[in-house]
Amino acid sequence: MTNYKMTIAYDGTRYHGFQKQPQLLTVQGVIETALLKMTKQHPVEIIASGRTDAGVHAKGQVISFNYPGNIPAQNMLKALNSLMPLDILFVAGEQVAADFNARFDTISKIYEYRVALGRYTDPFLRLYTGHYPYKIDLGRIQTALKDIVGKHDFTSFAASGGVIKNKVREVYRAEVDVAEFPREITFRFHGNGFLYNMVRIMVATLLDIGNGRRDVHDFLRLYEVKDRQQARLTAPASGLYLKQVFYE
Amino acid sequence: MTNYKMTIAYDGTRYHGFQKQPQLLTVQGVIETALLKMTKQHPVEIIASGRTDAGVHAKGQVISFNYPGNIPAQNMLKALNSLMPLDILFVAGEQVAADFNARFDTISKIYEYRVALGRYTDPFLRLYTGHYPYKIDLGRIQTALKDIVGKHDFTSFAASGGVIKNKVREVYRAEVDVAEFPREITFRFHGNGFLYNMVRIMVATLLDIGNGRRDVHDFLRLYEVKDRQQARLTAPASGLYLKQVFYE
Repeated sequence: MTNYKMTIAYDGTRYHGFQKQPQLLTVQGVIETALLKMTKQHPVEIIASGRTDAGVHAKGQVISFNYPGNIPAQNMLKALNSLMPLDILFVAGEQVAADFNARFDTISKIYEYRVALGRYTDPFLRLYTGHYPYKIDLGRIQTALKDIVGKHDFTSFAASGGVIKNKVREVYRAEVDVAEFPREITFRFHGNGFLYNMVRIMVATLLDIGNGRRDVHDFLRLYEVKDRQQARLTAPASGLYLKQVFYE
Repeated sequence: MTNYKMTIAYDGTRYHGFQKQPQLLTVQGVIETALLKMTKQHPVEIIASGRTDAGVHAKGQVISFNYPGNIPAQNMLKALNSLMPLDILFVAGEQVAADFNARFDTISKIYEYRVALGRYTDPFLRLYTGHYPYKIDLGRIQTALKDIVGKHDFTSFAASGGVIKNKVREVYRAEVDVAEFPREITFRFHGNGFLYNMVRIMVATLLDIGNGRRDVHDFLRLYEVKDRQQARLTAPASGLYLKQVFYE
């Protein structure tokens, strides 16, 4: 057995998320089917740094898996790419120690969220951005982003129904890239972990702050009230990208 | 009756081309269905500057149509956008003289063709570019582009089966934008008219020249031989954009 760590990119549009589900098209399902072909029917289970939801994209998702055989990493990459549909790409790969686990060894992640601005949805961006048709004040958003950096209880920003009790996470960086403004802005969050839907709920809240519908320091209040109902909106999956995953 | 001239953008991925066809999803079909709703069942036929093929995109297609009523152009634009799917957008509109015809009054057009380079198809560009995985020499392509400018018989670059006898067209500008090189290049052609598949066949030929598979001045030979078989390849629809249409 050889343990592989591989970085993949995918356009999440067609997929019912990363995680395997019976009868549904998922990223994990497609990759495990390809591995099954390569091993001639010996099932290989892949482990990802974390799940991504239906419609969410990845530019740097990391997976690991034990393969029955010792194929050089570059050949493994080529073989898998030759079996992938055009919306999943193996970007990099290496052989790693037997105890490496793409999920449990993660130390931090970067997510990006692209927001298309303007009255109408751009036909060419509809699958790759969220759309916000209202006015935003970038200064208010930049002020609010400072309230996100640090260690906070993100209970108000976690989709209900999760099994994880501890909702404290540390965000190292929270910034907005305005290179494409006024057509588009991109949020970027680097943190030690993200709760289910946390980035999409934070983005919807930031846009409300930018529009003046919420107090500029509403994040501080939301950390205190610990109430998902008060954050209210979730930005659409189409704008979210798992950008990078860090390991020791 | 009021005559309208409107500029539209569309992501051609889902469509069987611009032109209406029974039982198939087309851009014309979707727009005429919306107009039928607005007129309460009075059919309105739209005229486009030209057809685009299945999978071909438009950023500046122009259409005209006679509408039974006099709605301000901005209201017409809003009404139509409210009835469009997210992959078709009305960008601009105006009322025009009764004799304006979006097809016959066209004096020139600009087409763009985006080519993604690199070994693998980028999952996020697969629907919006053609992909060329081989090496290209930009100098050779730039030399070949000079052979396209001017008045030439493009018989070798026209899909067979067309009814148009005169295959002479004038190209005013033929250039390559390398801002995204080495990941991507974009071709841009401005001409008084383009034959069926002409841009896609020219792009495939230019890439062959860039790769060294053809003589750098092969366009000059192809103008002479007037033989579609010798140009051989057609670049995929996904990279082609009708960018702009000019009128008097």
